[in-house]
Amino acid sequence: MKPSTVKGTRDFSPLQMRRRWYIFDTIRNVYRLHGYQPIETPAMENLSTLMGKYGEEGDKLLFKILNSGNFMDKTGADSESFWQENRETERMSRALLSKISEKGLRYDLTVPFARFVVQHQGELCFPFKRYQIQPVWRADRPQKGRYREFYQCDADVVGSDSLNNEAELVQMIAEVFSAFGIRVQVRINNRKVLAGIAQTIGCPEKMTDITVAIDKWDKIGEEGVRSELGGRGIPAEAVEKLFPVLHLQGDVRQKLQDLRIFLQESPVGLKGVEELETVFRLIEQMGVKTDCALDLTLARGLNYYTGAIFEVKALDVEMGSICGGGRYDDLTGIFGLKGVSGVGISFGADRIYDVLNDLNLYPESLVSGTQVLFVNFGEKEQEWTFAPAQALRAEGISVELYPSPAKLQKQFSYADNLKIPFVAIIGENEHQSGQIVIKDMATGEQRSVSPQDLLQAVSSAE
Amino acid sequence: MKPSTVKGTRDFSPLQMRRRWYIFDTIRNVYRLHGYQPIETPAMENLSTLMGKYGEEGDKLLFKILNSGNFMDKTGADSESFWQENRETERMSRALLSKISEKGLRYDLTVPFARFVVQHQGELCFPFKRYQIQPVWRADRPQKGRYREFYQCDADVVGSDSLNNEAELVQMIAEVFSAFGIRVQVRINNRKVLAGIAQTIGCPEKMTDITVAIDKWDKIGEEGVRSELGGRGIPAEAVEKLFPVLHLQGDVRQKLQDLRIFLQESPVGLKGVEELETVFRLIEQMGVKTDCALDLTLARGLNYYTGAIFEVKALDVEMGSICGGGRYDDLTGIFGLKGVSGVGISFGADRIYDVLNDLNLYPESLVSGTQVLFVNFGEKEQEWTFAPAQALRAEGISVELYPSPAKLQKQFSYADNLKIPFVAIIGENEHQSGQIVIKDMATGEQRSVSPQDLLQAVSSAE
Repeated sequence: MKPSTVKGTRDFSPLQMRRRWYIFDTIRNVYRLHGYQPIETPAMENLSTLMGKYGEEGDKLLFKILNSGNFMDKTGADSESFWQENRETERMSRALLSKISEKGLRYDLTVPFARFVVQHQGELCFPFKRYQIQPVWRADRPQKGRYREFYQCDADVVGSDSLNNEAELVQMIAEVFSAFGIRVQVRINNRKVLAGIAQTIGCPEKMTDITVAIDKWDKIGEEGVRSELGGRGIPAEAVEKLFPVLHLQGDVRQKLQDLRIFLQESPVGLKGVEELETVFRLIEQMGVKTDCALDLTLARGLNYYTGAIFEVKALDVEMGSICGGGRYDDLTGIFGLKGVSGVGISFGADRIYDVLNDLNLYPESLVSGTQVLFVNFGEKEQEWTFAPAQALRAEGISVELYPSPAKLQKQFSYADNLKIPFVAIIGENEHQSGQIVIKDMATGEQRSVSPQDLLQAVSSAE
Repeated sequence: MKPSTVKGTRDFSPLQMRRRWYIFDTIRNVYRLHGYQPIETPAMENLSTLMGKYGEEGDKLLFKILNSGNFMDKTGADSESFWQENRETERMSRALLSKISEKGLRYDLTVPFARFVVQHQGELCFPFKRYQIQPVWRADRPQKGRYREFYQCDADVVGSDSLNNEAELVQMIAEVFSAFGIRVQVRINNRKVLAGIAQTIGCPEKMTDITVAIDKWDKIGEEGVRSELGGRGIPAEAVEKLFPVLHLQGDVRQKLQDLRIFLQESPVGLKGVEELETVFRLIEQMGVKTDCALDLTLARGLNYYTGAIFEVKALDVEMGSICGGGRYDDLTGIFGLKGVSGVGISFGADRIYDVLNDLNLYPESLVSGTQVLFVNFGEKEQEWTFAPAQALRAEGISVELYPSPAKLQKQFSYADNLKIPFVAIIGENEHQSGQIVIKDMATGEQRSVSPQDLLQAVSSAE
């Protein structure tokens, strides 16, 4: 009987909203400071824009919107033959889908961005640096930490091949997490290096298998990786050749030197090493202090990315990747605009929310919405509160008058429940003496102040 | 071939985004200053939550989401009888709808808010003052100024009957439009007064007809209103009785006095007059300077509202209502929680966007995203830009380095196109002398500054 949210979706309470805005505002501010420009695209896109862009599984996970009105019209479902041919409902669903639905909800921000670039190419000035913070929807099975509606926070540059972009994105990642106070490691790899490794050991078509196997090194050790590779059809000689890569030691510089020797016969691999060298050099020049590691096991979105790959892990909490990204060489090709290279990152707002929560890193000020509650003693007395309340608001302080002259206890418990730090009282006595009584709800302390000192009295929290 | 947005929906460019945020941030800030708390609800709701809440027409205008996977399963559409009974596709659409779709997109923010209050009633502290700024979707025929996706900006208090809330909402309306620099009139009416008028002239069931007819006074004059009323089945004697109301003269106080006499036989009407008197008195006490008028022709959402009604018109531009609201006595009753009264307002962000545009009222600063572009002369020279760029960012200034050492003309035309006000140059000479050349793109003026003076040099715009 009691109404509820759709499974896998969430309401956000005022406290959750303030925390989420803190996350979005922090990310948005870093994007803005680096010259990225905001755009927004509609929640719904034509299915022709969305279908086929996320693989077969992705097509199934798109939320599709039913055409309005008489949606069965022109489906042919009223013909005898349709019914004969589609007696199994699964077949019927497939036959009807494209006819009764033409729109779907945004599944990520990347495909709508590609559509945006192609549609507005005449108005845009390249390189185009854009950011976009909007919800996306996926008809996934809901489970802990996985929602059907969640926000993505993307920044991308398109129309520039310069590795300055890669380095600046790492710089931005460092700034965002430094602002949050979350200690992270940025793991960096390059898809060309992975291709070079596969080439060097004589299995150019096995890049994904090799990377997946290497990725398990920490968990299953050297012997585990050996047998994993064998299981994935990598010949024993190739596995032997691979081992120098697994034993790379030292700092980034040393590793890249050794990698250069290892990949000396692979032009693509050497190109990847060179790109990594440049990116790491630029990061250093930019003064990034965050730990940035070369991680050859990093493989994210292998089919999609073509150059640099980034992934960020929190150091002080067990959690998957909280930010990722990379270089892709042909974002807009799917919509007919060839040769537009791009590179971008995306922050996982929901996971960052959990990390900040687990590490207790939210600013204390987010707990309160209203800063000052004026007590309501009645029709005559409330008039005395209007001017001081407005004076505080003019200074940016959030102020409420309790709307009715309820029992004092009720008004104070309202302040308590909403964690309002200060209660202001103007009764007959205060009015006579031109004073306002301020109660600090944390300490219980009360004091009288003049209207001139009111701002200072309620700003002194924390 | 070229991909496009769904009909009736819009992409927002960086400039449009900055202008829209200016609108949302201004409204949000006023809501916040008055102790309203932010919430968000999911884009999709169960159809059981949405259907039947917006009338028959509204049900049709809901965007419905197709169930995932084998959606025709369990519809009975595979049976011979289903097919025999539903050979007309319209009938078939109706028969299938509730079986193949269980979710719909948010149509407004009011019904989801009511659902929120009922679902979370145990966690909420009443009176609950919330605001919510989110998009809504309607499957309307798109036309100029009407979109299928648009934002609503609502604030409501539930769980308080105090007329302080009505007055504060008017105060907030005044603050929002004063911040925008838009001159407005706030028109105020009360549904009880309208009921009283209908009662007094002997046609209690004709309240809507009477109000609609009175509303045309400005356009069609006294005689026009007479015949309109006749056409709507109001007897001639009743029309005669009504005329003193149409001829009310003077200021609000005078009008309310005359209305009190006119409505002396109608208890509900007198209650309405009393409420109006209180609201106007409170508005004055609160120091609201905006023109607030009593407008008996105001009838918005008559079936929905039960007390005060507000509507706002811009004075300097021809445009429909740009904000509205009122008191409703039973918002959550539809979901089984009785007796929760509420009052709220909603700003029309799209219309406000147009008004600000027509009156040229956007702050000039919204034109630019990036404030400073550093010219890129090459790998060696760009390194010199990293430190000063970061120093400016630390002061909140948005800074870009052009990503590659392109021709100077290209880099300057990038700055021109993006309306970046300052271009910063550090070439070999500047580096040697420890200076930075700043070009003001509006005036064409160039000057050399030291790194210490850089912030001031690029802050001096406007």
